[in-house]
Amino acid sequence: MMSAQIIDGKAVSAKIRGGLKAQAQELINNGIIPGLATIRVGEDPASKLYLKLKHKACSEVGVYSEDHVLAEDTGEKEVIAQIKKINQDANIHGILLQLPLPKPLDSRDILAEIDPRKDVDGITPTNLGRLVNGSKGFIPATPKGVLRLLDEYGIELEAKKATVIGRSVIVGKPLYLLLLSRNATVTMCHSRTRDVTEHTKDADILVSAVGSPGLVTADMVKEGGVVVDVGTTKTESGLAGDVDFEHVKEKAAYITPVPGGVGPMTISMLVENTVLAAQNSAGF
Amino acid sequence: MMSAQIIDGKAVSAKIRGGLKAQAQELINNGIIPGLATIRVGEDPASKLYLKLKHKACSEVGVYSEDHVLAEDTGEKEVIAQIKKINQDANIHGILLQLPLPKPLDSRDILAEIDPRKDVDGITPTNLGRLVNGSKGFIPATPKGVLRLLDEYGIELEAKKATVIGRSVIVGKPLYLLLLSRNATVTMCHSRTRDVTEHTKDADILVSAVGSPGLVTADMVKEGGVVVDVGTTKTESGLAGDVDFEHVKEKAAYITPVPGGVGPMTISMLVENTVLAAQNSAGF
Repeated sequence: MMSAQIIDGKAVSAKIRGGLKAQAQELINNGIIPGLATIRVGEDPASKLYLKLKHKACSEVGVYSEDHVLAEDTGEKEVIAQIKKINQDANIHGILLQLPLPKPLDSRDILAEIDPRKDVDGITPTNLGRLVNGSKGFIPATPKGVLRLLDEYGIELEAKKATVIGRSVIVGKPLYLLLLSRNATVTMCHSRTRDVTEHTKDADILVSAVGSPGLVTADMVKEGGVVVDVGTTKTESGLAGDVDFEHVKEKAAYITPVPGGVGPMTISMLVENTVLAAQNSAGF
Repeated sequence: MMSAQIIDGKAVSAKIRGGLKAQAQELINNGIIPGLATIRVGEDPASKLYLKLKHKACSEVGVYSEDHVLAEDTGEKEVIAQIKKINQDANIHGILLQLPLPKPLDSRDILAEIDPRKDVDGITPTNLGRLVNGSKGFIPATPKGVLRLLDEYGIELEAKKATVIGRSVIVGKPLYLLLLSRNATVTMCHSRTRDVTEHTKDADILVSAVGSPGLVTADMVKEGGVVVDVGTTKTESGLAGDVDFEHVKEKAAYITPVPGGVGPMTISMLVENTVLAAQNSAGF
């Protein structure tokens, strides 16, 4: 049996960041420094780590970035006031509110205040709605990164059977809409699905975005299928995906590793969206 | 073999309209006449018929309605100017732009101009996005009507397998999101799906929203399943759904007829959304 081709998110990401660097430079040559503002509420260690990686990627590419940190007990009104201030800041083209927010903040109410033109996370109702009706808008970074990886490896989506496990607003649902826009026949499974395997075993493309190590075992995967692992769970032995990589890679045709698969792409797509926002603001 | 229970959209609709009449009266007692404005561009006969039914339903319930008719060759700017004018009209709580628009008008650009608070068709990016992130907003009339019918007949959706055929922005995609929000495992099929039957034959709930008479035959349906027919095609022998009603009703447990199934519900839900918009405007 052949072992799957490993989809190298790190390599694809490096290539993309090279291209973004050139685009950022072109903007800078035209007097526009692309700028990202991140907002963090509270001291969640995972959020801090993700933000560090995001700012590092911005810096590598030549995108200005700043981090706004609010105390754990900040109220909704104050978070919204911060967003509104940055909405008005002409030096900032992209705004990222790092999720999850501490309780009892409702992220939906707060996210809706981000100017859709600066919504580089693609998470405002306006940009999510554009994904539904197929008009131009910002696409959330992780699903955008998944599609880009598949495209880079020449994996055809047209008329393919795709199954997405996990229905989050930031990954599962936008990915479902993107796969549909590429003419895949898409099934979405989630925590209430009776028999997940029934929906995965014939899937040409299987994406798991749950955050549950070992969820996807070899018996759930189609021989010769494509398996994309969006799960990232911190374990004692390091970062773990949803997929039983060692066994699934003996059955699939393509597989993304964790780490080094979708993760680097998420960050690159955020930077790409920021550069795009700067280009839009300049009428490029 | 038992024959399916026929889901009576006309009867459910009549009941709903009775309730809406009372709600409209309560608004009127408080000095607010709920108002709907429809906009039609051009002379499409089907659009004219649908609008006639919508205005008739408003009148029955005690909702004020007015019809704005623009010439076939009206430009995008003029249609948007009309929308903006009605956005400002305090007497109008709901705006419905009748689709399809004549070419070359792009409905997406134009619909995006409707004030989301008056978007009783649930078709602006903002309201579609709210369907994705699960926040409160207007739900498009037809998918809302489908869910209401299923609820009225006590049909459980939790953990059920649902398949939707047809991925329109106004029916298929919102319905997919609604079924998902009710914890169904949902598959969406469309014109590029290789083998539709594979996805329908085990579906507990099957919804067809294509507009292709005879598309859904008995062999495609699960024994004891629920079949909802959203298709409406004008034929020589009258209005036809997508489903081969005579044969499928011998196999399914529940089935909606055409006419008299989803159709009346669509109109009732539009009126309901208008009453809701008037209530929102009054802070009810």
